[in-house]
Amino acid sequence: MFLSRSDYSDLSGGDTRAHRELSDEAFLGQLLIFEKHLATAAATVGVIDGAQLTAAHDAIEDFDLDVAVISRASASGANPAIPIAKALKAEAADPAGIHPGATSQDAIDTALVLCLKAAGVPLQELLGAVQNLLVQLCRQHRDTPMIGRTLGQQATPTTFGAVAAGWLEGVAGPAAELRQALADLPVQYGGATGTLAATYPHGLAIHDELAGLLDLAATPIVWHTNRYPLIRVATALAAVAGGVRKIAGDIVWLSASEISELREAAPGGSSAMPHKANPAAAVACDGYARRAPALAATMLDAMDSRHQRGVGSWHAEWPTIRELAATTASAVTRLHASLDGITVNTSAMARNLGQAATSSQSAGHAGELVDAVLDTWKEN
Amino acid sequence: MFLSRSDYSDLSGGDTRAHRELSDEAFLGQLLIFEKHLATAAATVGVIDGAQLTAAHDAIEDFDLDVAVISRASASGANPAIPIAKALKAEAADPAGIHPGATSQDAIDTALVLCLKAAGVPLQELLGAVQNLLVQLCRQHRDTPMIGRTLGQQATPTTFGAVAAGWLEGVAGPAAELRQALADLPVQYGGATGTLAATYPHGLAIHDELAGLLDLAATPIVWHTNRYPLIRVATALAAVAGGVRKIAGDIVWLSASEISELREAAPGGSSAMPHKANPAAAVACDGYARRAPALAATMLDAMDSRHQRGVGSWHAEWPTIRELAATTASAVTRLHASLDGITVNTSAMARNLGQAATSSQSAGHAGELVDAVLDTWKEN
Amino acid sequence: MFLSRSDYSDLSGGDTRAHRELSDEAFLGQLLIFEKHLATAAATVGVIDGAQLTAAHDAIEDFDLDVAVISRASASGANPAIPIAKALKAEAADPAGIHPGATSQDAIDTALVLCLKAAGVPLQELLGAVQNLLVQLCRQHRDTPMIGRTLGQQATPTTFGAVAAGWLEGVAGPAAELRQALADLPVQYGGATGTLAATYPHGLAIHDELAGLLDLAATPIVWHTNRYPLIRVATALAAVAGGVRKIAGDIVWLSASEISELREAAPGGSSAMPHKANPAAAVACDGYARRAPALAATMLDAMDSRHQRGVGSWHAEWPTIRELAATTASAVTRLHASLDGITVNTSAMARNLGQAATSSQSAGHAGELVDAVLDTWKEN
Amino acid sequence: MFLSRSDYSDLSGGDTRAHRELSDEAFLGQLLIFEKHLATAAATVGVIDGAQLTAAHDAIEDFDLDVAVISRASASGANPAIPIAKALKAEAADPAGIHPGATSQDAIDTALVLCLKAAGVPLQELLGAVQNLLVQLCRQHRDTPMIGRTLGQQATPTTFGAVAAGWLEGVAGPAAELRQALADLPVQYGGATGTLAATYPHGLAIHDELAGLLDLAATPIVWHTNRYPLIRVATALAAVAGGVRKIAGDIVWLSASEISELREAAPGGSSAMPHKANPAAAVACDGYARRAPALAATMLDAMDSRHQRGVGSWHAEWPTIRELAATTASAVTRLHASLDGITVNTSAMARNLGQAATSSQSAGHAGELVDAVLDTWKEN
Repeated sequence: MFLSRSDYSDLSGGDTRAHRELSDEAFLGQLLIFEKHLATAAATVGVIDGAQLTAAHDAIEDFDLDVAVISRASASGANPAIPIAKALKAEAADPAGIHPGATSQDAIDTALVLCLKAAGVPLQELLGAVQNLLVQLCRQHRDTPMIGRTLGQQATPTTFGAVAAGWLEGVAGPAAELRQALADLPVQYGGATGTLAATYPHGLAIHDELAGLLDLAATPIVWHTNRYPLIRVATALAAVAGGVRKIAGDIVWLSASEISELREAAPGGSSAMPHKANPAAAVACDGYARRAPALAATMLDAMDSRHQRGVGSWHAEWPTIRELAATTASAVTRLHASLDGITVNTSAMARNLGQAATSSQSAGHAGELVDAVLDTWKEN
Repeated sequence: MFLSRSDYSDLSGGDTRAHRELSDEAFLGQLLIFEKHLATAAATVGVIDGAQLTAAHDAIEDFDLDVAVISRASASGANPAIPIAKALKAEAADPAGIHPGATSQDAIDTALVLCLKAAGVPLQELLGAVQNLLVQLCRQHRDTPMIGRTLGQQATPTTFGAVAAGWLEGVAGPAAELRQALADLPVQYGGATGTLAATYPHGLAIHDELAGLLDLAATPIVWHTNRYPLIRVATALAAVAGGVRKIAGDIVWLSASEISELREAAPGGSSAMPHKANPAAAVACDGYARRAPALAATMLDAMDSRHQRGVGSWHAEWPTIRELAATTASAVTRLHASLDGITVNTSAMARNLGQAATSSQSAGHAGELVDAVLDTWKEN
Repeated sequence: MFLSRSDYSDLSGGDTRAHRELSDEAFLGQLLIFEKHLATAAATVGVIDGAQLTAAHDAIEDFDLDVAVISRASASGANPAIPIAKALKAEAADPAGIHPGATSQDAIDTALVLCLKAAGVPLQELLGAVQNLLVQLCRQHRDTPMIGRTLGQQATPTTFGAVAAGWLEGVAGPAAELRQALADLPVQYGGATGTLAATYPHGLAIHDELAGLLDLAATPIVWHTNRYPLIRVATALAAVAGGVRKIAGDIVWLSASEISELREAAPGGSSAMPHKANPAAAVACDGYARRAPALAATMLDAMDSRHQRGVGSWHAEWPTIRELAATTASAVTRLHASLDGITVNTSAMARNLGQAATSSQSAGHAGELVDAVLDTWKEN
Repeated sequence: MFLSRSDYSDLSGGDTRAHRELSDEAFLGQLLIFEKHLATAAATVGVIDGAQLTAAHDAIEDFDLDVAVISRASASGANPAIPIAKALKAEAADPAGIHPGATSQDAIDTALVLCLKAAGVPLQELLGAVQNLLVQLCRQHRDTPMIGRTLGQQATPTTFGAVAAGWLEGVAGPAAELRQALADLPVQYGGATGTLAATYPHGLAIHDELAGLLDLAATPIVWHTNRYPLIRVATALAAVAGGVRKIAGDIVWLSASEISELREAAPGGSSAMPHKANPAAAVACDGYARRAPALAATMLDAMDSRHQRGVGSWHAEWPTIRELAATTASAVTRLHASLDGITVNTSAMARNLGQAATSSQSAGHAGELVDAVLDTWKEN
């Protein structure tokens, strides 16, 4: 189930910009983008003529994208690309340029890919901003003494910079993987059973032309039942969510009344307890991030795509991967809000450290570890 | 992420009626219902007076439920109940009757419960309709010979009635559990840390009065961190989804071109292959149903609620259980569409059976098993 | 993958008694129990004679249950019941009493059920012991003042008894459901495609006789593809795991150096930090419990059982539900170790409460809530 | 829960070679390997002398690795590295060379990594063998006409080579990712809170020396709470499982009695139906593979590692990732058995195609697509 609205931030302060690109309104919009560029590609290759191209583009331009109407019409074929293609064909002066040689899965998979890449822009911007905030913390607190904790117990000394460096590394790896996975997303154009028969012998040429027009990868050529391109994105999103969730959970615990080592810049109040300084952004981050593992599992399960088209498995992917992207974007958004202007209470850190049994022990190689993480980060 | 619209059937022909009760618009509406009845309960118990009650009800009546505005305001406290209570208190001539002794979790948990019960009405109606269709199939085909299949291979004879009886049993058990779990959902009213301190010594009285007004169970009394009432609903929903998914998958396979034993009344077409008779409703059913297990896993994971309020775990529940209810309702809706008027091709069944190596074997106790299942079903 | 050994407690101090009943050695042993009692039931009903019964029992008695040998022989049919039945038939003086009218799924499903019920004995004993420890805490600390915490922040006063009462309720509900689900587990005897054709007209009589001999429910009569009986157990186990996990996580946090309100009787050391007092049992509990949601999801997904026998879905259930039971038993075992003799530091509670901004506020109805929970618990 | 035995193939014909490297016996053995090489590294760097090194190696050599004894001793600290280190220190003539500057997590994480790499050898060999079998099918059947199917319905013509090429691509991508993820696995040596304080200023030198001795990556330097290195392996394993599962499910369906286009070389029998030719290996493959998504979800969830050591989350990883590797290895093993010598019934393919409404349509670019996939595969 999805948003048709564009300014919706969910109910715990989540993201809006990425959501805008993942809504069903956006999804259906990308279906039209697919159809438009497919017509162009078909014309470029010479499978349709100029008049047919114009007719197609006019019909697509005039199409009234009413989400409710389309969703009702989606029932009979179980997907929205069928009624859209049908309506466009009926509308076009000449239907030849509408959906030439394509099947629903071509339109839908490509639309999903376009949604993910579009949402990836604000998501990756924010991921970059989060990493920058972490880098700052690493630098500022490279040598800030702090007690390390394991299993809830004060253990041996470390530095807050070393803690932040661990946070940074835990996000940087997945972020890099996400960037690559999004960049590698391919166009889908394979026709009914993936043989590009309907536009033979021009099918592959149209395919590659379309990939170029949409700035999508051209391989794997047909991936109707090889879902790995989407799986790479799904698992990278879930890994990003895991990385930010770890940070959020640490912030919540370090903000605990009895520890007070961190404090969000704008701590949340409470409807019942006005005195509280809840680490509300970190809490919301966790609420969004913890939904990711299961959504990734549904995507992994959907790899079981039967014959030449997933039965149900394919249908489950459309809302699932968009939800996964949306909830990850919301988690990153909230983490940014949590880290932005966060107060690092070095006195509290010193006090807690002072009370530890191991307070006189050294923080070992903590500083060098921070340096090493920052060096690696700068290179990437 | 959720719907603010009410007439949305998702993109594979899913449910609309249950969705209407699960949208964020509905969810926020139920938050207002909570506040309204809490004021009434507080007045009945005598904690506020008539003028304060009127002031509260007027403010709630006048409240402009703008989902986008509220969602933006939800960021600072990570939930929408805080800004709503704040706005109502500012609006009311006398704030005493707004949110007396309550905490956000009371409003939100109760609202979730009300959403689930409301969505449960059309969902259970449709589940009943599905079971009725299955009962008809059991009766009509009690003795219709059919080859039984295991591991994709023709095995030994059975009857289509016996197959339908298995379908019926697989849905009836979970449906009964869902009915009970929904009926047992309790009100939530516990105050800041679940001690009902703010309205002491009238807290428990207000609690029970509120339960009565909302027609909700009064126990467990406070369940801020005992999520079992919602878990019962979540696992029942997932079990219903599993039961309908099994049927849908069987319909898809039995509708296969080479088998042709079943055929949906209005088989779906294809954008590329007009000759096809896709079991589109069953396919869509599977697409919705297969999302349920992972959503249930997120709910089970969210049982790890820290101290007196879940950190992130609680926040993850709000969209997750509504998604689970929505996708289950959509699965049931599609299964109903699949079964309604389905053609049972007894000739094809006879032909396939005739080709089986075991065609001369008997169908044993198949008829008696159908009778037994129907007898049990009638009693419940 | 499973244990063939019986004295194995896993690597974080987990359960051994329940594991003993869930190992593959035990599982295969229960397959023999099924065969033995099926022969008896067949004789009682008169489908085989006394000599055939003796021949069957002798062969079963003499059977060399070598797990490695059987597992290698399981490859060709993808299950161990086939080679076992084959070997028994070859061994018996008269094969008529071996596996009469049965199919592999009858033996395997019944064996799974017997394993679960056997493991349920120590598991439920320990669950009862855990609840008793919680009841003691409720009574002893009904009025022990303690600060309530939400989102990691000190909130408003409560009592440790009220906290323990919440713990108790969170476990008691799932425990009761588990007891009922285990008690309702049925025998499986349906034959090749669930029609009991091979022993017609005595199939149902043998079925019911077998149920009586094994002390298993006789309905649903055939559940080859209606997995709800196992789902009830799986979801109840996961709910138990969730209930104990919440307690374990609270113990870890309340044992934190800076809070020190709880302390395990035998806190764990560390290979590097001898001064530490890790709440090791609670930590291990969490490690076991958090595996449950995903295992339950695999079971829910496996409800998608095709035609008359699950393809792969059925096979996935055998290790999954035993793992789920084993990890839940280990979680409960560790929680018992954590709670047994736990030190409740009432001074630390008082101190922390004293530092809270709300320290002068009351704990409201906390005591009455404890009483209410104890009353309900006593009744059940 | 894990195997202590080495020749166990699970109960559906699963893998033995990889299991051997993943058993608890192997896991504990790798803990000793870690200790042995850590002593060597410490000596090389000069932190211990030759006599201390000899003392350490002697103690490790003499250590009686009794899984049951160790597992019982693991309870107090919730992990097996503590009692092992303790016993070795007591045993060694001089304890200085035992576990110098290390913490349990260093030993356990490194042991996990060594288990995964060792299991990766037979797993990747078999994955390569599977891909070779698929390449052969692609070549042999590049132009074998076959009807394409979508949603269970005959659709438009394709070739079996094109189908096999899709199978190949779906496995090749994940296999390459798995290879890289395993190759990138790092050593873990960070000390109590990841600062390498106890062996300062030689901590980083020992770390890098140890990495070299064990042939493991040296970065990320410390990853106690950055679980991404393991996540990369976990998601790659689940993607491999998804790729093989798709193939297995297609084999089952194409082996269906009514379709008969494929037939395993050694189809499984049945305890009740001797005439059957069950695609038993493919069925078993699905049973193993479908467990992977949930296991991957548990690993993703475990990224939420608190402070300087995961509480419970870390403990859950040890059995989970080994189960994931084991079940994936079993799935690949069974798929190899399914594909090895599989009969491709080209007559049945021609017959089914002949009956399709679209039989006269072309298979388009099918052959070129096969060529493209083979070209890409050869390059990698």
